[in-house]
Amino acid sequence: MTTTDLRIAVAGATGAVGRELLTLLEARGTEIGELRLLASERSRGRTIEFAGRELTVQLLEDAAFDGIDVAFFSCGKERSKRYAPAAVERGALVIDNSSAFRLDADVPLIVPEVNAAAMPTGSGGAIIANPNCSTILMVVPLAPLHQAFGLESVVVSTYQAASGAGQKGIEALLGGVRSYMDGPTDGGAAGEATAGETEVFGHRLAFNLVPHIDTFADDGVTGEERKMVLETRKIMGLPELPVDVTCVRVPVLRCHSEAVTIATREAITPDLARAALQGAPGVRLVDDPTGLEYPMPVDADGVEPVLVGRVRDSAVFENGISFWLSGDQLLKGAALNAVQIFESYQDMCGPQAQLTAPAERRED
Amino acid sequence: MTTTDLRIAVAGATGAVGRELLTLLEARGTEIGELRLLASERSRGRTIEFAGRELTVQLLEDAAFDGIDVAFFSCGKERSKRYAPAAVERGALVIDNSSAFRLDADVPLIVPEVNAAAMPTGSGGAIIANPNCSTILMVVPLAPLHQAFGLESVVVSTYQAASGAGQKGIEALLGGVRSYMDGPTDGGAAGEATAGETEVFGHRLAFNLVPHIDTFADDGVTGEERKMVLETRKIMGLPELPVDVTCVRVPVLRCHSEAVTIATREAITPDLARAALQGAPGVRLVDDPTGLEYPMPVDADGVEPVLVGRVRDSAVFENGISFWLSGDQLLKGAALNAVQIFESYQDMCGPQAQLTAPAERRED
Repeated sequence: MTTTDLRIAVAGATGAVGRELLTLLEARGTEIGELRLLASERSRGRTIEFAGRELTVQLLEDAAFDGIDVAFFSCGKERSKRYAPAAVERGALVIDNSSAFRLDADVPLIVPEVNAAAMPTGSGGAIIANPNCSTILMVVPLAPLHQAFGLESVVVSTYQAASGAGQKGIEALLGGVRSYMDGPTDGGAAGEATAGETEVFGHRLAFNLVPHIDTFADDGVTGEERKMVLETRKIMGLPELPVDVTCVRVPVLRCHSEAVTIATREAITPDLARAALQGAPGVRLVDDPTGLEYPMPVDADGVEPVLVGRVRDSAVFENGISFWLSGDQLLKGAALNAVQIFESYQDMCGPQAQLTAPAERRED
Repeated sequence: MTTTDLRIAVAGATGAVGRELLTLLEARGTEIGELRLLASERSRGRTIEFAGRELTVQLLEDAAFDGIDVAFFSCGKERSKRYAPAAVERGALVIDNSSAFRLDADVPLIVPEVNAAAMPTGSGGAIIANPNCSTILMVVPLAPLHQAFGLESVVVSTYQAASGAGQKGIEALLGGVRSYMDGPTDGGAAGEATAGETEVFGHRLAFNLVPHIDTFADDGVTGEERKMVLETRKIMGLPELPVDVTCVRVPVLRCHSEAVTIATREAITPDLARAALQGAPGVRLVDDPTGLEYPMPVDADGVEPVLVGRVRDSAVFENGISFWLSGDQLLKGAALNAVQIFESYQDMCGPQAQLTAPAERRED
């Protein structure tokens, strides 16, 4: 069959990442035979324009994956757990943006620039997990540094945008800022959290910082911090890599940033590190401090590569550097990485190997 | 003489820190015989209310320190360099908030909870330097941890509020946010930096992050980052302490926050660290994640102690922990620490030793 026979489903088509995904598929001219947009009952029947066609959102249910070749899931962990097996059973390649399967030993967790080799090869239904957004942004520059100098440990602090909590995160932050600037409209005092902020972030986020993303474990580590540790280890193939993480929500609308300090096995200098980063896949080096050029969230917005700069020597680690990155967590941190996984899979397997018709595939 | 004979000058009385200082002196009921408010030509003649009296701002000039016992300087490095010697010459104790003298070998750099012992003892004119705000907030919790476990290294990322750049920083951030929310009023496009933001921060700060505070050195380290390294070493009496710092301006109005990871000589656990921090001078432990209690800028606003929480084990350092802090950089990070230096000096030296009349003092 030709690639134009390709049948794609997008589960969670109306969410922040789902919409980015559709924009990317359209912009990249992906040849699609059928595009099936799936969402929960609430969004069923809505129409979304794609490449000049009006597509109607259908209900996310097992049968919606009949005949589907590739299913992008971006509708939360619980729905992934519930529906991804049905898609796999029907022979689809599932590219799942949730954390549902990321740490499963038999599910590859892929950032194509880093570990494309871990991609499944055979045909037939399978799940590939798309990593956590902050993790993706960090491993993209860590990969060339590891290759050149051997990564020994990582200390990272994140500065994560409101949109990491989806469209409702953006709305909650803007509502909180509006309430602060104009005086509250929901009965609270100026400077108090709005109901929207409390619901999404647990606290006010306008002009504030919340060092709490995802739930806390008994050891005081948040789910987001644990993901960055365990997923970084899995993606980089360094199961013992020591990683210390502090994840913080900041009053930024879009794009996550991270302050990273690493120790390496081999001698490393800022110049050597910049040489390794310059031209590395997925990295854009932005490191001209005297020209006031360094990564910032507003400059990463809508940009595919991860912006990396402020490369400096480490005083703490004999072989070590610090750097700063900003990346669009809805693009490379989510939708773009999912599309790149799909494209890498196509490249590696070829359309014949991968995109067999369901009937043939079920024989594998 | 009695303490009510005390003659105090405040150089930079109309600035953000100067105003905090006056509020503190008034609130603490400091007995003052004469309070002389000094500022540049621009603010001369303005009146400021203090303890029910209207005080007129006088010109900052050498002769303004005639007869002054204690002079608080908070008017920038250049003015400190220019006028502090004149105050010292006239026998005043100068408590300087700028970076002008901080690294001078013969000038004590004091955070009373940490190194009150380094305070000058004799009477007569002298300078005591008040450290950088981010440094003060960090060394307050580091001191009890060092005492209990022996500090070996520090990796820190800062999240610094707009008011670190003074009142104009607050106004620039609010102006930038207003421009973003309402559309720009100064000719730019929505989302572009306002003129105020560019002037103060070099870039837009509204809904953005700027990893650049103070000027860059050739090694890519900013002045703010260098201050945190060198001042931390001096205050803690650990001249070789390895410290890796990334300083970032965040769209918060007031209070700096920091994600800190430390290595220690002795074994340390989160419980042991919390026990050392609990009740340590200047520290308020706020570490109940399940109750959503952790340090946040909005909760540190106007609060004297540094809020410390999110204490966790380190995977990178065999003996190590990570923690998170928020503190009011205009209070403990500046004005409060200056007042505490003054109070410690009074306590240590006694009013007789210290606050002699100028004529007597000149004999020393």
